[in-house]
Amino acid sequence: MNRTLRLHEAGALTIDQTRLPFEEVTLDLRTHEHCVQAIRSMQVRGAPLIGAVGALGLALALRTDAGDDALESAFSQLLATRPTAVNLQWALSRVRDRVAGLAVAARAAAAWSEVSALCEEDVACNRAIGEHGVALLAPERERARAAGRSLQVLTHCNAGALATIAFGTALAPLYQLHAQGEALHVWVDETRPRNQGASLTAWELARAGIAHTVIADNAGGLLMMQGRVDAVIVGCDRVAANGDVANKIGTYLKALAARAHGIPFLVACPGSTIDAATPDGAAIVIEERSASEVSHLRGRDPHGNVIDVRLVPDGTNTANPAFDITPAALVTALVTERGPCTPVLDVIRATFPEKFASQEPTR
Amino acid sequence: MNRTLRLHEAGALTIDQTRLPFEEVTLDLRTHEHCVQAIRSMQVRGAPLIGAVGALGLALALRTDAGDDALESAFSQLLATRPTAVNLQWALSRVRDRVAGLAVAARAAAAWSEVSALCEEDVACNRAIGEHGVALLAPERERARAAGRSLQVLTHCNAGALATIAFGTALAPLYQLHAQGEALHVWVDETRPRNQGASLTAWELARAGIAHTVIADNAGGLLMMQGRVDAVIVGCDRVAANGDVANKIGTYLKALAARAHGIPFLVACPGSTIDAATPDGAAIVIEERSASEVSHLRGRDPHGNVIDVRLVPDGTNTANPAFDITPAALVTALVTERGPCTPVLDVIRATFPEKFASQEPTR
Repeated sequence: MNRTLRLHEAGALTIDQTRLPFEEVTLDLRTHEHCVQAIRSMQVRGAPLIGAVGALGLALALRTDAGDDALESAFSQLLATRPTAVNLQWALSRVRDRVAGLAVAARAAAAWSEVSALCEEDVACNRAIGEHGVALLAPERERARAAGRSLQVLTHCNAGALATIAFGTALAPLYQLHAQGEALHVWVDETRPRNQGASLTAWELARAGIAHTVIADNAGGLLMMQGRVDAVIVGCDRVAANGDVANKIGTYLKALAARAHGIPFLVACPGSTIDAATPDGAAIVIEERSASEVSHLRGRDPHGNVIDVRLVPDGTNTANPAFDITPAALVTALVTERGPCTPVLDVIRATFPEKFASQEPTR
Repeated sequence: MNRTLRLHEAGALTIDQTRLPFEEVTLDLRTHEHCVQAIRSMQVRGAPLIGAVGALGLALALRTDAGDDALESAFSQLLATRPTAVNLQWALSRVRDRVAGLAVAARAAAAWSEVSALCEEDVACNRAIGEHGVALLAPERERARAAGRSLQVLTHCNAGALATIAFGTALAPLYQLHAQGEALHVWVDETRPRNQGASLTAWELARAGIAHTVIADNAGGLLMMQGRVDAVIVGCDRVAANGDVANKIGTYLKALAARAHGIPFLVACPGSTIDAATPDGAAIVIEERSASEVSHLRGRDPHGNVIDVRLVPDGTNTANPAFDITPAALVTALVTERGPCTPVLDVIRATFPEKFASQEPTR
């Protein structure tokens, strides 16, 4: 599988996700300003990819000036690009911690090597999440096979290859099932307001040859009631110490419906997404994004041009909270690179003890 | 308040709702074919308005040919335009029952008088629903006032004046609260895929001067979790004998969230929407509408033109169930013209005994 972020000597290549699915435009990130802009404008998005591009930005900044002030300044600027994804803070801290004790002249090379390692680890992490996810879905696979039909999985937003360096988190098990020849069909929530499902998940599943159907975000409850969803699997932007999950707005509504119908609700969760310093979901800051993301929508007009159209009457107010909180009690399992993890503090701490070594969660 | 359907000697004037909110185009419905086309294309929509336009179509057909065959043919053609809203069947049957025993020469005039009566009754019905809804919201009004803030109501789709002859059903209490000077703010679900919230509810609330904010359908769960919603009120397309509610796709997800947070979930329900012959929600046919309603969206381009843009990659499948079922257990009350009604068979039957006189619900 192609990697979403491809390092080269002067920076990295990636795809401009604001132009998908209609145009495939390659971005060449060569400065830390490029990285700031790419994250802020959501040309790159998805918690793991945001982390990697943040780390890349810090490494590129150090090539220009690796002094302590420049390090802190670039760190702060990159951290401020998106408030919710904890991977960004984790990845930036990782690069900073790696270089802080080094001579200034040695920092840029060390930072680069850390970015490279971080990318390799993301790929390995996602492969492991895929394997654990496949194992967790065994009962639903058996039931679908026994009924002579495809396994039906619903996903929200894009936690696929495009959200990571490769494979994705929530989609990693689905790629592996497909590679094993499993009959599989994915319900893709379009994921308003930015439509990452309709534009990104649909695009990458089509490239992989996985059967899928895009639905309005409103449809999932009915499909579950009708027995047409075997499992829900989503990614996450931050998981609190108690297992509460911050993910794309609308995730919570699907978790409520899955619980109402006894359907497994899996959250693909790299350890880097766990925030031991955040005790629970109520402590997570919800990013409020631009009102224009709700009032306008990007699509392709009948002439093939990609344009933004206005959806609401002139003068209409819109609100745009970008994430919501799914209480841990609604999550069947966190699917981590170390295996499935019940979303309660003791289990999360036992699975990722190093994250809690220096933390005592407090409100 | 202006009426949405204005009868005149040769038919009726209404607004083309597919052109809102950007263009106000008046339709003049003068033949039963006009009415068939207007319902099928959703130029008119909303269960009560669909019923009225269906009845109008039947009355207009009888002006051309009032014989038994023509009556049955027009009835069937009009009934086939939309499968879910029971008001259509109710309104058509009402006109047919009124004229069936008459001499052919007397039928057209009698049908017209029935249509006129039906419209007057809709207005009175909605006014009564408004009054009962206001009374039901008293505890939430008190709490909002005590906290020195606006009453916050969330609605889905459009069950406003545009869905009826006047006042609306779900919005009727809100219009009355506003007229009483109550500080009120409405969260308007945009209501994908057809965006009736963003285009119709926002338009009519703006005309009435009621404060409102359009949100993605995904946002309601978070807003309820944050304590920013005092009540949810929606309309309905069909209510089964046991109180299960068919309404616009996505209603069910909001009902689950309202229940999770102890928020009243009110369904404005004219008696005409109750289907005593349907025992429960599982027996309700869910209309599957065109895939293009999900793959494409209408909006106004930067030049002011109203166009459809494509949202998904070429070749992407979409599914488009138009309604979902909210189990009666999630509904706090049906707000009918005869008062609030607990959604259980015995109470519904006691409130609308005439509906059950000839019915014994069976599966």
